[in-house]
Amino acid sequence: MLRPKYLLAMDSPLSPSTLEKLRQRSWGIKVGVPLLLRLGVQQVKGLVRDWERVVCDMKLADIDSTMVNTVDALDGLCSALIAHALVGKRGALDALRDVTRNLNISLYLLVSMSHPGWDDSLLGRGLLVAKEVDPEGLVGPATRPLIITRIRETFPSKLILAPGVGAQGASPGQAMCFGADVEIVGRKVYSSPDPVKTMEEVIDEAERKLMECEGATARRDRAE
Amino acid sequence: MLRPKYLLAMDSPLSPSTLEKLRQRSWGIKVGVPLLLRLGVQQVKGLVRDWERVVCDMKLADIDSTMVNTVDALDGLCSALIAHALVGKRGALDALRDVTRNLNISLYLLVSMSHPGWDDSLLGRGLLVAKEVDPEGLVGPATRPLIITRIRETFPSKLILAPGVGAQGASPGQAMCFGADVEIVGRKVYSSPDPVKTMEEVIDEAERKLMECEGATARRDRAE
Repeated sequence: MLRPKYLLAMDSPLSPSTLEKLRQRSWGIKVGVPLLLRLGVQQVKGLVRDWERVVCDMKLADIDSTMVNTVDALDGLCSALIAHALVGKRGALDALRDVTRNLNISLYLLVSMSHPGWDDSLLGRGLLVAKEVDPEGLVGPATRPLIITRIRETFPSKLILAPGVGAQGASPGQAMCFGADVEIVGRKVYSSPDPVKTMEEVIDEAERKLMECEGATARRDRAE
Repeated sequence: MLRPKYLLAMDSPLSPSTLEKLRQRSWGIKVGVPLLLRLGVQQVKGLVRDWERVVCDMKLADIDSTMVNTVDALDGLCSALIAHALVGKRGALDALRDVTRNLNISLYLLVSMSHPGWDDSLLGRGLLVAKEVDPEGLVGPATRPLIITRIRETFPSKLILAPGVGAQGASPGQAMCFGADVEIVGRKVYSSPDPVKTMEEVIDEAERKLMECEGATARRDRAE
């Protein structure tokens, strides 16, 4: 059975002991601009030093020099970095691709977002840019699982991460059933009075969901 | 005569005395993610405390809660903030619009970028979102002045800022001739051995350019 993988979005700092328990239950941890502005790069580094996977979700969407400069300012914090595919390759993602490869940082390209105002007529362009840039992973919305399937069809063997579980309304496991490898959960866990228990409930719910859809896939496979 | 207005992009810190001389020659100062990560919000605040206009160029492109959280973490540093129009209104720019209005921060929406990989088939969508969100200003590329004209046609009376002067190849004054109010110059100035002299040269060149195009406009007006 596939164990559901969760990337914990830590937008507010959690205590070291809570964080350690969450680490044992998570695939990785995601930090973003607000936390980095509040605590500073070095303090965030200290908080996440035991984590194998630290995803810096900067939603980078700038020209080459600024994005490369940002990676440099992050000072080795991140094992992976999220950027917007839509900024395109020449004079933007080409340089970011080079620098992340040289520093052994995984590049995840965001091709579609989880909020209602996002326009998925942009998806084709995003996927095209992603093909040119050849990132290690793609990011798409757990809130619109058919988009996840379309990303999976375009990239059969790349890592797909799906934010939107919990506060944004996607139910645990659904994006994985539609082709995501890792779901991202944030507010629901870090705003919970008992973050560890909430994380366990999310994982359990995803596990049940995965059993259903894996059963469905197995039946479909036999029918083909 | 229109005096050319310049927004100084400070991606590397400048000495207080240089900065003070540049302040007297500039419309405002722009700071971004790399500098904020390197120095921290409070130190950047100290550096720019005498400036009337501090534009935080975060290139925000996230969901509502993260963008609002970023504004909060910036702790009163910015008089204006740059966000990507493409993320759309619902669940994203709607909340950012509210919070910036409440805090009396100008919102500038980026509708087109200055690097070669940017795809201007996205411009229509960006302008549409900008109309819905009603920002105080728009950002478009000095490197492609016809795009500036198109933004000006869509927003006859809003502020238009144009990055790309200097290191990225646009010549001073050109974007203003095509409809921009303010040009953004960065590397050319802060990487110069004499930033103040370079800034003066840029402004002088823009002034000459503006005289030419204003002359051209005047002739055209008379001919109509």
